[in-house]
Amino acid sequence: MRRALDAQGSPIRRESFMAKSKRVGYAVIGLGHISQRAILPGFRHAKRSSLAALVSGDAKKAKLLAAQFGASHTYTYDALDACLRDPEVEAVYIATPNSSHVEFAVRAAEAGRHVLCEKPLAITHGECQQIIDACRKNHVKLMVAYRKYFEPAALALKKLVDSGRLGRLRIIHSAFTVTLPSGDSWHLKKALAGGGSLCDVGIYCINLVRWLTGMEPTEATAHAWTNDPVRFREVEDNISFQLKFPGGLFLQASSSFTAAKASFVQIHGEKGWAALDPAYAYNEERRFFGKVGGKWFERNFKIVDEFSLELDHLAACIRADRDPLPDGNAGLRDAMIMEAIYEATKQGRAVAIRTHEKFNSQPA
Amino acid sequence: MRRALDAQGSPIRRESFMAKSKRVGYAVIGLGHISQRAILPGFRHAKRSSLAALVSGDAKKAKLLAAQFGASHTYTYDALDACLRDPEVEAVYIATPNSSHVEFAVRAAEAGRHVLCEKPLAITHGECQQIIDACRKNHVKLMVAYRKYFEPAALALKKLVDSGRLGRLRIIHSAFTVTLPSGDSWHLKKALAGGGSLCDVGIYCINLVRWLTGMEPTEATAHAWTNDPVRFREVEDNISFQLKFPGGLFLQASSSFTAAKASFVQIHGEKGWAALDPAYAYNEERRFFGKVGGKWFERNFKIVDEFSLELDHLAACIRADRDPLPDGNAGLRDAMIMEAIYEATKQGRAVAIRTHEKFNSQPA
Repeated sequence: MRRALDAQGSPIRRESFMAKSKRVGYAVIGLGHISQRAILPGFRHAKRSSLAALVSGDAKKAKLLAAQFGASHTYTYDALDACLRDPEVEAVYIATPNSSHVEFAVRAAEAGRHVLCEKPLAITHGECQQIIDACRKNHVKLMVAYRKYFEPAALALKKLVDSGRLGRLRIIHSAFTVTLPSGDSWHLKKALAGGGSLCDVGIYCINLVRWLTGMEPTEATAHAWTNDPVRFREVEDNISFQLKFPGGLFLQASSSFTAAKASFVQIHGEKGWAALDPAYAYNEERRFFGKVGGKWFERNFKIVDEFSLELDHLAACIRADRDPLPDGNAGLRDAMIMEAIYEATKQGRAVAIRTHEKFNSQPA
Repeated sequence: MRRALDAQGSPIRRESFMAKSKRVGYAVIGLGHISQRAILPGFRHAKRSSLAALVSGDAKKAKLLAAQFGASHTYTYDALDACLRDPEVEAVYIATPNSSHVEFAVRAAEAGRHVLCEKPLAITHGECQQIIDACRKNHVKLMVAYRKYFEPAALALKKLVDSGRLGRLRIIHSAFTVTLPSGDSWHLKKALAGGGSLCDVGIYCINLVRWLTGMEPTEATAHAWTNDPVRFREVEDNISFQLKFPGGLFLQASSSFTAAKASFVQIHGEKGWAALDPAYAYNEERRFFGKVGGKWFERNFKIVDEFSLELDHLAACIRADRDPLPDGNAGLRDAMIMEAIYEATKQGRAVAIRTHEKFNSQPA
């Protein structure tokens, strides 16, 4: 039955073969570190999502992982079209090197498959726009895999910010540092990654603060550096950047590819402050603490499977025909901001970021 | 006996009237918030220091506080020379508005009195140098009141940094924010304060990182802003600044006069990370936490009287004829760095800081 459909060579409308209540079947495209360590295990805890297929250049690896994680089918990249016609595949999770996101996202959209894409959505804002346009045109959902939107500790922080109990926000500090394993990596190649630690982990600081505050930065300054100019000759190792937000809020953030894994965000408001530390890495307990109204608080959050939560969010949106959040625009905005940050490292002074005025209001 | 000596009108050599084992008698000059809340109470827990005299423009306030804290004598500023000839006064603690530090420090030094001066040491590096020169010439000790050098949590952090267990340091974030009480304040006047929140609280971030790392920054960038340009028309309210250190270390720091009291420092090294949060305000418990060698640690430190510790440090140095640390050079360096930071807010790009090469080495 499936083979017969495959042979048609055209997009299959999911409604024709799948009950609305059924789990959404995903094809995971790209079987690198993040897939093996986080995305594939995420299906085990998912309630609305199932692993339908794996796509990899390495057929043997794909079969091994399919057996381990219970995927029905495996495909090589040559057979991607077949995968995208597979009636069990309603959505794709794109976890390939950043430069290939645009190709896979557009092809999936054109095949009528919903798209969940690892961050960054793409390596230029133009490519992000192409993905957004393709998904709109083909009436499929587009979500960027920002885990924080679904994580209880981050949601608790957002609830506190939204409550206004911190007062007007003044200063935010945030960092996400990791140690890139020794040896070669696509993360070191500009053509594949688009940039260095900013694209891989620093982006969390940008996205989190935009999400927490609902505001868009207007200006960027930045400094990038390394102690290993041979290894980091194409992309930045360490980067510290500053984003100016409306209403007198300023973000100082950093990322690194050569520091121990660590991450935090600390928010200073007129009336209180709050922090998550650790904040960003997966499979970590979170500590949420601060002082509001002169009173100290601290809550610890156990590890949750943030990947199953994001898989299920898109699945729920598909079934309910709602737009997911984070959407493609979140990825597009972050790409534009990263472009301004990189430009600022070159110019050595503030670079304007294109803004949408409607996003930028802080209560007086 | 004391009166007869006063009438000589010349510096009295402490050795002539005071046994080496006796507590060092301090005159506290300036009886504002920091004196009333922290310095005067500090004498209660001091073991080597005693409160000999109070100096204030408000004679009534001085007498009330003298009764409360057990000072033998009070003086108005008109009678400062008499105070500095008082044989019970071996040292002064200068806690007046920043612009007057240079005058009081130089007069104390010329009267043969040791000097413990609130931070910033003075409002220009030139004035800092004048103080240093006067203290050298008159063979008196000079110490700047940086409390962190004596505080157990900060010492634990320094011990960890010194141990090398964090590896090479990459990125440090730090902030100290306070809410300046409403109404008028010398902190709002450039002529008295020298600057805004940077001079009052942001300076902690600079000094702590210099002390922790033993390195001097070479370049500053900065951005200052406010939502209240009427109140903050002379000095900065919020400021975020970045300092580039040798060896690939970068500091991002902030201070504010209009955010809830909060402070932290987080250090990202190659092999581990560590944080103090809260870090800087007095009469606060400290939390020291992080991850080293993949292992989480957390230590809480009870409140200690950091002021009695600094009073006693100078007292011990006086008795042992040792140089105190933090010394005048710490104050001078911080003043030079703050000048570069202010210049950077104007230029909107990196400003070089004069460095002493000998301080700047990070293990390879």
